Formats: sequence, structure tokens, C-alpha cells
Amino acid sequence: MIDFNQIGKKCGPVPYDYTWKDVVRYALSVGAQTDELPFIYENARGGLKVFPSFTTIVGQGLFVELFKDANIDFSRFIHGEEVIKLHREIPIEGRLLVEGEITNIYDKGKGALIVSRRKIMTEAGELLAEGEHGIFYVGAGGFGGDPGPKAETIQPPETAKPDFAVSYHIPENQAALYRLNGDLNPLHLDPEVAKRGGFPRPILHGLCTYGHAARAILYSTCDGNPARFKEFRARFSGVVFPGDTLTTEGWHDSGGRYIIRCRTDRGVVLSQALAQVE
Amino acid sequence: MIDFNQIGKKCGPVPYDYTWKDVVRYALSVGAQTDELPFIYENARGGLKVFPSFTTIVGQGLFVELFKDANIDFSRFIHGEEVIKLHREIPIEGRLLVEGEITNIYDKGKGALIVSRRKIMTEAGELLAEGEHGIFYVGAGGFGGDPGPKAETIQPPETAKPDFAVSYHIPENQAALYRLNGDLNPLHLDPEVAKRGGFPRPILHGLCTYGHAARAILYSTCDGNPARFKEFRARFSGVVFPGDTLTTEGWHDSGGRYIIRCRTDRGVVLSQALAQVE
Repeated sequence: MIDFNQIGKKCGPVPYDYTWKDVVRYALSVGAQTDELPFIYENARGGLKVFPSFTTIVGQGLFVELFKDANIDFSRFIHGEEVIKLHREIPIEGRLLVEGEITNIYDKGKGALIVSRRKIMTEAGELLAEGEHGIFYVGAGGFGGDPGPKAETIQPPETAKPDFAVSYHIPENQAALYRLNGDLNPLHLDPEVAKRGGFPRPILHGLCTYGHAARAILYSTCDGNPARFKEFRARFSGVVFPGDTLTTEGWHDSGGRYIIRCRTDRGVVLSQALAQVE
Repeated sequence: MIDFNQIGKKCGPVPYDYTWKDVVRYALSVGAQTDELPFIYENARGGLKVFPSFTTIVGQGLFVELFKDANIDFSRFIHGEEVIKLHREIPIEGRLLVEGEITNIYDKGKGALIVSRRKIMTEAGELLAEGEHGIFYVGAGGFGGDPGPKAETIQPPETAKPDFAVSYHIPENQAALYRLNGDLNPLHLDPEVAKRGGFPRPILHGLCTYGHAARAILYSTCDGNPARFKEFRARFSGVVFPGDTLTTEGWHDSGGRYIIRCRTDRGVVLSQALAQVE
């Protein structure tokens, strides 16, 4: 049983120390190639840049910290949704501060949706980015709680062709590299753990898929300039295996808003997805 | 002009601190795949193991340190030869100590061959591995110096088929990952630097090729057990580009000795190569 007193619980600010090598490893872990030098080369012309979705790994451990006193079985967690909002470019190294808060626990019937937020700041307290993390806690629903606001349905137009479509092949050892960013869940590398979880083999981190989609969006709508990348939200709706080909499509909506969909050959893996760019 | 007073110069012991993530990143940077869990998974059955050629990156900066007072133009350095000798398995994390020594400077006509050695030890002083590093210093030969001992010619038998042949495709961003092991020479990532060096595009680190060859040897002769891998020596005789396919062949010689050759579609890249296994 979830302890609802956890709603509103905050933690941090917790320091996050990193170097430019962490920035480069992250970019490589979401598939950056050698024609993407600004994200993988410390002496790139114009300087190294931090990939927008790098913010998803900054303080990612905070969620565990938030729940350490709640009677929670982490093996029943499924990553449901992820939002990033970027206010300023992220420095290529140094110390950031991260604050976390559990903002809501909704009753979704089969499970509970636990929503937490993170704020990523400089040491001087300047807000750089925000993140929202939705975790589906399997089997913990049906407690008669608030089902939460009905989500706006976001889906591509049925007939219009996408304004862009980018396909990336995921190397079979990509999750092994992605783990070095900090999420060491064995589900992504250990065949036995994957089988116990009901999968034929280890699955890619949802946030690795998310990073590949962000990469497709960055080049298709922002000319590769991370300062123009403002927001990306998506729901994790399907499993990706290393070795799959990920195709990210975008439909221009209005202003700098794009409706996004990401799929493998088997089906949609990111839905309810939106990007906001400048 | 080389300062020959450098012969015999020693430095260290210098500490080398690392974690299991460095061990895993190294394995991935020489192409380890998910069926090689003992080298990429911290909770692998039997425990994480250190890939034999990891020792090539331990204390690799010592060479620069050895030469810091010696009026040397590092842009004229070409990696010529590399030898590793492994005495005991390398711990998966902690602190090692490395000692370096310039053992010889030979006059090879077109250039000077500068040979340095490293000893890799535990903090308690136990010798784990040794390395020998031959650098060809272009344009610095012809000084009337010792040409050095004539190297034993090591080449595969002309007619016999190899006892093993293993091909690995090198992903186009492999050098970008390999750099994170510490050798940040821009020749391996920056197209302009590569052109200035006379190459059409960035080339793979010689030691990345070497690591791929060691990997092929490990699985073909030692059943993947690094404790059986005792020695590997090779001369760098050709350029590898990311995107190439590397084929490592081995001919059993006598005892645990194999004659090794590594090539791309364009020609031989590791010659004068020997592996000694148990």
C-alpha cells in the first residue's frame, strides 16, 4: 500500500557533479555519430554542447531517494511518462543542484501513477531545466483515489504525412553503454532478469529511446541547436529492444509545437508526445 | 633533436584510479557485445572481469610525462609497436601504481624508435602487468645511432589456413567512445586535424584496433578467460578507419603461441604479431 503522505514530499537540493566526458558519453549513448561533433568533441568549433535530454539523467536517482521511507517495491515500477523543459543551456561540466518533489499519486485502476518533478539549477540557484517523471506502480491502483485529470489526447493527424521522419538503428550493445549514465537496472542487460520480468530478452531503457527521439527532433526542427529545444514530453507505450530501428516522426502543429510519434517495426513506443521548439 | 640523455629515465610510481565503469567502458570501446557479459556487466555470474588489453590504457599518459623535458614534437609521433604481458588478473576497481621508463632510442633511418616500458602494480607493489610501447618519431632518425636489434620476422605461414579468423565491424562512432579511455588525440575525431595529418578522415586509435584483435584472440584461444591470456605483441602497420571491418587471424605455432595478423579490406594493420596463451 502506498503511503499517500508522500505527496508533497521534497528532497534536495542534491549536488550533481559531472565532467565533459559524461556529456559526451551521454550523447554517444543516445546514438550520436561523428557528424554530430558539437555533442561529442570537447574542442568542437563553437565549443562542446550538452544534448537537451542529458537533463533526464541529472539527478535521476532522486526518485529512489524520495521514496526511501515509503513501503515501495521498485520491481513493480514501470516508467510511464517523461517531460523535460529547458530554460537555459546546460554547462558542459561542473556542479548542478537538483530538487525533487512528489507532486501527485493518481489511482489509474490497474496501478497508481506517481508523478514527481525535478528542478535542475546552477549552484547560484538559477533554474536551468525542469523534469517531470511519471511512474506507473503496477497493482497499486483501485484504492478509490483521485484518477487525476484526463490527459489531453495527443496524436498525429490520421492522413497527413509527417513533416519529418528520422530512423536510427539501435546497436545491440547500446543499453550496455546507456547504463553507464547511471540507471543500472539489470532489466536492460541481464537476460535472466529480463525473462523474470516477462521479456524475451533485455529491453532498452525508456529514456534511451526518449533520447534518440529528442535527437531526431533536434536535427529536424532546431537545426541541431540545443538552445532552440524547449520542451519534450512523451508517454512510454511500447518496448524497444537493442537491435531495433527507431523511427521518430513529427507533425508541425502550430508555432514551434510538433506532435511526435516514435515507433519500431512492431509498433508505437512513444505516444502522447509533443515537442516545443523555438 | 632528441635528447639521448632521456634513455634510462624513469618516472612514477604514479597512481591510476578507476572504477568498474571504466572497465566496462573500455570493453565497449573495443566492441564488446551483450554476449560478452563478464566484461560489461557488474553483476555477471562469476563477477565482472577486466579485459586483458585494458592494461594498455592504464598509465598511458606516463609517456608524455617521461618526455616532458625532452624538446619533443608530439605531432610527429606514430605509434609503432605495443606489447602487453599479463601476470595476474587486474582488479575491477581501485588504485594501481604505474612506473615508466624509457628503455631505448634507436636510429631507424627515417625516424627514431623510442621504446618505453611500464610496470603496473598493486598498491602493495605486486606486479600485475607490463607494457612496452614503441613510438616512431618521424624525421628524427639518421643521427648515426644504434639501429637496435634486428627484429625476429614474425609472419603467418604462406600456405596454411589460419586456425581462427574473427571479423568485427567497427561502428563509425567507435573512436569517439574509445577517446573516453583517455587518449584525446584529435586525429581520431577531428576531420581537419586528420587532413592536416595526411588522412582523408579521422583514423581509429591503434590501441583500439589492438583491443579488437585481443578480443578476437581471447575468444578464439582462451575460451574468453582473461587469466589464460599472457602476452600480445603487435606492430602497427596500417591505418584503420571507423566503419572498416577488422579481421583477426591466428595460426597456432607451438605451445600456447599463436602468430597473429589483423587486416582490413585494404591490407594488413597489425603485423609482427604474437599471442601467448595458457
